[in-house]
Amino acid sequence: MNVFVIGIGLIGGSIVKDVKRLIPNTTIYGIDASEVHIEEALSLGIIDEKADYTQLSIADVVVVSIPVDAMITELPKILDVINDDCVVFDAGSTKVKICKELGNHPKRRNFLACHPISGTEFSGPSAAINGLYEGKTNIICEVEKTAFKLQERALELFKILGMRIRYMNPEAHDKHIAYVSHLSHISSFMLGKTVIEKEKNERDIFDMAGSGFESTVRLAKSSPAMWTPIFKQNKENVVETLDGYINNLTEFKKMLLADDYEGIYNEMNNTNKIKEILNGIPLNKNK
Amino acid sequence: MNVFVIGIGLIGGSIVKDVKRLIPNTTIYGIDASEVHIEEALSLGIIDEKADYTQLSIADVVVVSIPVDAMITELPKILDVINDDCVVFDAGSTKVKICKELGNHPKRRNFLACHPISGTEFSGPSAAINGLYEGKTNIICEVEKTAFKLQERALELFKILGMRIRYMNPEAHDKHIAYVSHLSHISSFMLGKTVIEKEKNERDIFDMAGSGFESTVRLAKSSPAMWTPIFKQNKENVVETLDGYINNLTEFKKMLLADDYEGIYNEMNNTNKIKEILNGIPLNKNK
Repeated sequence: MNVFVIGIGLIGGSIVKDVKRLIPNTTIYGIDASEVHIEEALSLGIIDEKADYTQLSIADVVVVSIPVDAMITELPKILDVINDDCVVFDAGSTKVKICKELGNHPKRRNFLACHPISGTEFSGPSAAINGLYEGKTNIICEVEKTAFKLQERALELFKILGMRIRYMNPEAHDKHIAYVSHLSHISSFMLGKTVIEKEKNERDIFDMAGSGFESTVRLAKSSPAMWTPIFKQNKENVVETLDGYINNLTEFKKMLLADDYEGIYNEMNNTNKIKEILNGIPLNKNK
Repeated sequence: MNVFVIGIGLIGGSIVKDVKRLIPNTTIYGIDASEVHIEEALSLGIIDEKADYTQLSIADVVVVSIPVDAMITELPKILDVINDDCVVFDAGSTKVKICKELGNHPKRRNFLACHPISGTEFSGPSAAINGLYEGKTNIICEVEKTAFKLQERALELFKILGMRIRYMNPEAHDKHIAYVSHLSHISSFMLGKTVIEKEKNERDIFDMAGSGFESTVRLAKSSPAMWTPIFKQNKENVVETLDGYINNLTEFKKMLLADDYEGIYNEMNNTNKIKEILNGIPLNKNK
C-alpha cells in the first residue's frame, strides 16, 4: 500500500509512524513545504521516500496534516491528481470551511473529513511518536459524502491505530471543539502572557511555579503557525467561548471584590464535577 | 523524634510519609478535625498515633497543613502549648497574614513560615504520596525570626525530603504566588465552568476533549475548602492578576473581531518563550 503524508509534523508524522509499524508492506511517501522537515523525516525513518504532487496518482491513502488555511488551498489540488480509488483524509481542527470548500469538488467522494483528537504541545517531525492515537477519538464529518469502500479503507486504518470513531456534522464539530479545545489554547496562551508580562524582570520568580502552573500553561508552547488559522476559521465560535469565559472570570473577580466567599466556594464546588467528566474522557481510560 | 502533623491531607500527609520513611526512630502523631481522616491515616500507616493539642508538649517538630484561615486561629494555640525546643512550620499558600498574626507571639522563634510548592489536584489522607517534595521549592519567609537551631532542624528535614530552599519576604511571596499559582487555579476553575455551562445537556461532547483540555482544567478538581481562604487572604494580589488576565483575553478577542491575525500570531509567538521558562522550573528537572 502506498501512503502519502502531506505535512510531516506531530500529527501526520505520528499517523504514518503507526501505519508503517502496524501495517505490513506499506511505503510511506512524504511531502512537505520544508526541505528541513523532509530530511528530518527521512533520517528519523518516518517516511521512506520524499515525493511531490505529481506522484500522488500512485497513492492508496493520502494523509493531509497541514495548517487549516493551507487545507483550503491544497486539498482541491490534491484531489485533482489522485486516482479514483484513493482516499484522502485530513486532520484539521476545524471542519466547516474545509467541507464547504470541497463540497462541489468532482472527487468529493474520495475525501473523508476527519479530526483525530490527539496531540502534544510539540511540533515538527521530531515530535512524532508511536501510539499517539491509541484510545483517542476521531471525529468524522459528512461521512455520507465519501465513497463507501474508501470509508472502509480509512476506518480500517483508524482501527489499527486504536481510534474510537464519532460522527458529527461540521457545524456541531466547530461549535463544540471551540469549547473543549480552542478556548483551552487561548486561556493558556493568555495566562502565559499575563505572567511573563508581570514577571519579566524577575525570572527567578518562576522558581515558585509548581506543576499546577505548568499544567495550565502547557498549551502556550503550541505552534502559532498552526493555531492562527484555526482561530481565523472558527472565529465566530471562538469569540462566543471567549465571551463566556471572560464573563465568568469577571463575575469571579466581582465576588472577590464583594468579599462573597460563600459564592466563591460554591462556584468552585459546582465546578468540581469536572472530575467525573474528565474521568469520562477517553484519554484517561488508557492510562 | 516526635513529629506531629496537624491536618492530614495531601500536603501534611505526604510530608510525614517521607519523614517516617526516611528518618529512623520517628513517631508520627496525627491531629485532624475529621475523625474519618484520622482513621484513614492510621489504617494507611501515615500516622502512628492519634493525638490532640494536650500532647503537643512532647513534640520535636510540628507540621501544620490546614486551610490558611484555620492557620490564623490554630497556629497561636499550637505555639502556646509546645515546648521551647520544638519547631513548628506551616505549609500555607499565603504568608502575609500568617506572619503578621504570629509577629508578636511569645514563641515566634519556634515558628518557621514555609510554603512547600508541590501538590496534586487531589485531597485527603489517601492523596498523600511518597516523594511529593523531591526537587521542589520550599519558600521560607522571615527566616531571621526563627531560632537558629530550630531553623537547622527544619532545614535538615527539608533536605532529607529533597527540597530546594528559597528565602523571600511574605509580601513578595504573596504577590508572586498570585501569578504563578493562584491565577492558574482561577483560570482553570472558570474554564471548567464555562465549558460545563455550555455543554451541560450534551455530555457526549466531552468525547471531543483531548489532553489539552484535561491539562488546562486539571486544577478545577482542587478543594474549594482549601482554596476559598487562600483567595480571601490574598484578595488584593489575586484581583490584580485577574485584571491583567481579563485584559489580555479581552485584547485577544478584539484582535479576533478585527481580523488582526498577524497580531494574534505575534501574541502566541511571543508567549512561546514560556517553553524556556518552564524548562527552568524545578519540577521538570526531576523528570
